[in-house]
Amino acid sequence: MAFGAMMALAMFSTVAAQEEPSVDDTLADLTVAINMVWLLMTAFLVFWMQAGFALVEGGFTRAKNTGNILMKNMLDACVGGLLFWATGYAIAFGLSGDESNGFMGNGNFFLSDFTSYGSWMFQFAFAATAATIVSGAMAERTKFSAYLIYTAFISGLIYPFVVHWAWDVNGWLTAFTDDPFMANGYIDFAGSGVVHMVGGTAALVGAIVVGARKGRFDGNAKAVTKPHNLSLGVLGVFILWLGWYGFNPGSTLVVTGGFADVAAKVAVTTTLAACAAAVTAVFWTKLRTGFYDIGIILNAVLGGLVGITAGCATVDPWAAIVIGAVAAIIVPFAIQLLEKLKIDDPVGAVPVHLLCGAWGVLAVGLFSTQSGINVAYGEADGYGLFLGGGAEQLVAQIIGLAAIFAWTAALSGICFVGIKAIMGLRVSAEEEEEGLDLGEHGLNAYDLSTIHNAVEPRFDSAAN
Amino acid sequence: MAFGAMMALAMFSTVAAQEEPSVDDTLADLTVAINMVWLLMTAFLVFWMQAGFALVEGGFTRAKNTGNILMKNMLDACVGGLLFWATGYAIAFGLSGDESNGFMGNGNFFLSDFTSYGSWMFQFAFAATAATIVSGAMAERTKFSAYLIYTAFISGLIYPFVVHWAWDVNGWLTAFTDDPFMANGYIDFAGSGVVHMVGGTAALVGAIVVGARKGRFDGNAKAVTKPHNLSLGVLGVFILWLGWYGFNPGSTLVVTGGFADVAAKVAVTTTLAACAAAVTAVFWTKLRTGFYDIGIILNAVLGGLVGITAGCATVDPWAAIVIGAVAAIIVPFAIQLLEKLKIDDPVGAVPVHLLCGAWGVLAVGLFSTQSGINVAYGEADGYGLFLGGGAEQLVAQIIGLAAIFAWTAALSGICFVGIKAIMGLRVSAEEEEEGLDLGEHGLNAYDLSTIHNAVEPRFDSAAN
Amino acid sequence: MAFGAMMALAMFSTVAAQEEPSVDDTLADLTVAINMVWLLMTAFLVFWMQAGFALVEGGFTRAKNTGNILMKNMLDACVGGLLFWATGYAIAFGLSGDESNGFMGNGNFFLSDFTSYGSWMFQFAFAATAATIVSGAMAERTKFSAYLIYTAFISGLIYPFVVHWAWDVNGWLTAFTDDPFMANGYIDFAGSGVVHMVGGTAALVGAIVVGARKGRFDGNAKAVTKPHNLSLGVLGVFILWLGWYGFNPGSTLVVTGGFADVAAKVAVTTTLAACAAAVTAVFWTKLRTGFYDIGIILNAVLGGLVGITAGCATVDPWAAIVIGAVAAIIVPFAIQLLEKLKIDDPVGAVPVHLLCGAWGVLAVGLFSTQSGINVAYGEADGYGLFLGGGAEQLVAQIIGLAAIFAWTAALSGICFVGIKAIMGLRVSAEEEEEGLDLGEHGLNAYDLSTIHNAVEPRFDSAAN
Repeated sequence: MAFGAMMALAMFSTVAAQEEPSVDDTLADLTVAINMVWLLMTAFLVFWMQAGFALVEGGFTRAKNTGNILMKNMLDACVGGLLFWATGYAIAFGLSGDESNGFMGNGNFFLSDFTSYGSWMFQFAFAATAATIVSGAMAERTKFSAYLIYTAFISGLIYPFVVHWAWDVNGWLTAFTDDPFMANGYIDFAGSGVVHMVGGTAALVGAIVVGARKGRFDGNAKAVTKPHNLSLGVLGVFILWLGWYGFNPGSTLVVTGGFADVAAKVAVTTTLAACAAAVTAVFWTKLRTGFYDIGIILNAVLGGLVGITAGCATVDPWAAIVIGAVAAIIVPFAIQLLEKLKIDDPVGAVPVHLLCGAWGVLAVGLFSTQSGINVAYGEADGYGLFLGGGAEQLVAQIIGLAAIFAWTAALSGICFVGIKAIMGLRVSAEEEEEGLDLGEHGLNAYDLSTIHNAVEPRFDSAAN
Repeated sequence: MAFGAMMALAMFSTVAAQEEPSVDDTLADLTVAINMVWLLMTAFLVFWMQAGFALVEGGFTRAKNTGNILMKNMLDACVGGLLFWATGYAIAFGLSGDESNGFMGNGNFFLSDFTSYGSWMFQFAFAATAATIVSGAMAERTKFSAYLIYTAFISGLIYPFVVHWAWDVNGWLTAFTDDPFMANGYIDFAGSGVVHMVGGTAALVGAIVVGARKGRFDGNAKAVTKPHNLSLGVLGVFILWLGWYGFNPGSTLVVTGGFADVAAKVAVTTTLAACAAAVTAVFWTKLRTGFYDIGIILNAVLGGLVGITAGCATVDPWAAIVIGAVAAIIVPFAIQLLEKLKIDDPVGAVPVHLLCGAWGVLAVGLFSTQSGINVAYGEADGYGLFLGGGAEQLVAQIIGLAAIFAWTAALSGICFVGIKAIMGLRVSAEEEEEGLDLGEHGLNAYDLSTIHNAVEPRFDSAAN
Repeated sequence: MAFGAMMALAMFSTVAAQEEPSVDDTLADLTVAINMVWLLMTAFLVFWMQAGFALVEGGFTRAKNTGNILMKNMLDACVGGLLFWATGYAIAFGLSGDESNGFMGNGNFFLSDFTSYGSWMFQFAFAATAATIVSGAMAERTKFSAYLIYTAFISGLIYPFVVHWAWDVNGWLTAFTDDPFMANGYIDFAGSGVVHMVGGTAALVGAIVVGARKGRFDGNAKAVTKPHNLSLGVLGVFILWLGWYGFNPGSTLVVTGGFADVAAKVAVTTTLAACAAAVTAVFWTKLRTGFYDIGIILNAVLGGLVGITAGCATVDPWAAIVIGAVAAIIVPFAIQLLEKLKIDDPVGAVPVHLLCGAWGVLAVGLFSTQSGINVAYGEADGYGLFLGGGAEQLVAQIIGLAAIFAWTAALSGICFVGIKAIMGLRVSAEEEEEGLDLGEHGLNAYDLSTIHNAVEPRFDSAAN
């Protein structure tokens, strides 16, 4: 429809219908239109986070594995897309007849209900995020094929259940009902728990099952952990930050009915948490190591963003700053803890997504304001402990946190152990040594050898 | 106007006018507003594809030519912008008096009609896409000046005619009329044919006229075809995929009048086609070569996106998956074919844009549903052959395909042969050998020599 | 609110309220919704410019300082965000009681007024832009700590005053009043002066106070000024160009009340100015040096974008082309001038942002049309000198320009000289020599040593 001259017509009439539509019909049409623009544009921003994860993971690992890790990040979205179409969305939100149960959805497999298209697009982008978190923790030694099989399970099965529990009105953890299991139910506005803890838990389990990289704890650790390309890593964090403006504000899903103001608030709290985390990490790393540690600072930014994701709609800006600052300190401690436990997580996926995700879930029970819950979820029944709202919301958060962790750890454990037993999870020692780019893909990611660096710029820029 | 306090005022009144506007006026204003937001935001996403093309083409060619190919990608948008302002938009959509003819528009040169600004912005971004496809196929040996002259022709002349034929209500191929030349007319929702076949055909002609790179068929081919920077290439594909969410869903042009649902459907079909193409290429390349071939997988993603572009609004999600999977197999066969014909297309522009573009145009005639055409184009008169809708739509698609190919091949042929005769199309053999960055721009794209890689990280990250 | 089933509900009812809202309430809600979507999405695009500045500055400096300059670009947004929350927004737009004075705002410190959230998000992104311009001019020799302290001042103090003067209805320079100080007041639609001249002036002062890099004027200049990574630089310019579509069109702030058409016009003038600048620089550099100088061309694109920023809503497309072309010629002359004055600005921040910013401010007084001012600012009282609108608007522009330059030069001078005296502004000569990445951050930005480039691609792509 509607190119060129048609478009001009359509844009200057209210709708392109033959008969004049009623005011109510036009209002309904405009409401759908504005909400769809918001839903799709924010979904596209969330999809963009795939590129951010790819670059962060690529930049912070070694050059000989770059192509492999980048492609894992792209392919998990692709495998995940097909599985989320086949089963994932159905398990999360599907309705057979009038109602689903508290444990799983039960209809709309293969996206049979066309009224779900906008919602599917948005939820697919979230599913892809949960899946892609894992690749970083298992980088530089996991088989391409084994990783892709795992991503089918998390996108099509493990993650959708958690979504149903927390974000479907019929889920047992849901906050979107008049009859929640406790207080206001489990509140997780954009998914510190639902998305990041799921990804981070699977990342932890995967890193344990696949084992540490050669040399990580039994050789020259610094040679193993040197980032190969900080420019990629920093750009990746900028991309993720931008994508988070789809992730968090977009989780209003609608901007009518007063939710435009919620979206604006979420943009502010998201921004301030990231800012506070970065500044905290600057001080922290300088005081502890004498250097402004770029890896820690970047992970702190991501940790701050993960931390504010659950409470972005229900906490005030000052609390967002506190949440971000605490996340920034969680990150280095968690890195040290993994170091002591000899768990090898090359890019810090577990500290950022599991630990800061858990912190974000708890922070909802500590810092949420009564008015914040009222506006975003309806009549608050209990709110932040630190603000005098009692402990009940915190307990609800702990229950949700425990359920998400236990479910994901159990199922991803079965999944990784099964893959390891059946087909092997890890590349050969020789392949790990020469790099997965050569071993799995038959080529190298970089070749600058055609440049003659002896030659200096030939033009005289002063002659311009 | 509307900064600061003014803005608050404006946002909380319906319009900032002195007198209370009528409900009808307000509805009309809101309709214009929401559609303009959609049109502009998707146009910006399409513009962003310029960066994606630049990185894919830069990443997959040699380091000594990087600056040159990146700047060609930027400058073709710039030359194209000026030409599309002067003549391109006028030929595509211009009206002198009441009507243009079926062959070309005839008014609004130099954008004299200010009501076209939003439409111009959107269409400019598409024109820039058509133009920039060509640079990849002619990379690493084409003169900067010659390339820029060619881009003036495609943006200001060759491409706009095709747009007029297919997308202007008065065009002879148009699907936006009650009296199409056949079935529903030529259906190409977002331009598998109008944009990608035009770019891909010109790319083929350009690659033939300029000839193969030194060593490509007469030396060590692998040394010539090694990508210099896969990170750029993968990021470029992510950028293009994101931009495609402007390209395809944005081609609804409006989101009112029920088109919000069409936009959502298009986002879903676009996503699934890309996912299916990637997964297909993973299997395909592993089975055929023993490696997960990154170059083929990335080009398959792009091929899947090109393939779904024509039918994204009229086919169902399952068909999008089929279309993407077939595109993924077209790509490697087309690469082999070019190899046999000794046509040197360094980045696979011809397989992706010409061949998958043609596949996308045909797929409309095979897979379009009756309801899909009804919703997007009004009362369907024939639909997909495979769905029982008869062959007429397929014939209309073949006619459109043939017309676009013949026109573009003829005009771009004249253009390239003319440039070759008058000023030369190709750099000297010496310049090709040392690289176009030094020869045309007087510098190198990379210099990492200031880094002392012997030095290991100085801080102890465990001390954080 | 409103996930899954809830969302479907919400999207297909006009608002999710219990009682049917009135038509007027629904219209008001829709107006807020559409304007908030526009404000937030364009704010996100402006935030994205941070990544663009980082890559341009990183790409055009030496590899040994890459991590440092990238992190400065990220951290100035983070420090700036906290300060803009604490004091910046309050000084710019804050109201205590009914009114602020012409010099500064006086309320809403720490964002106490929640109705400002959307506006804060948008204005924060602009503040971050003004701050980050400076890092480029002081690159490769400025202490990380000193730079961060400076950014606190510009974001929390220096810049917000200028915003108040020009963009708050109570500011003494404002164009948003019936009683401006002269003609229509100082017109600067998106901030050629307010943002870019502030950043560019501080950049000039900073570059002078910190002094030139070693070897820049006393050694082999070409070795110092070689870009280390053109791919980053070009990508950065694409990112900035995309971000500018938030910066300029987004400065309508609203799209209702007829402003949708203004936004579309601004997108067109912004595009054409960038295109004209690029093409002009291609000719200019080829004629003057024999090469297509990539650095100059990229800076010309940015200069064209800076130049059109003030007048994007009030000049016609043809004038945008002239403004962009002139900016392209200002850039190389300004670079030569700095060279003669021995002021070392590694990335051309002063030519692009200060000089082209000043040109943009003046161009408003030369090229603005009467109808352009009428539509964007209400009843024009004088317009462009070259269009017969008299000199009064030009004088108003000169007054604004002088005030912005004097204020910023004075305060940033005090700031930089103070920092230099108290804690030192510059790293040690040894650290400058070995690179700031090792000195400040303890690591290198790149390590490609794990790649075995002797190995050629192993698969046979013809076998695919």
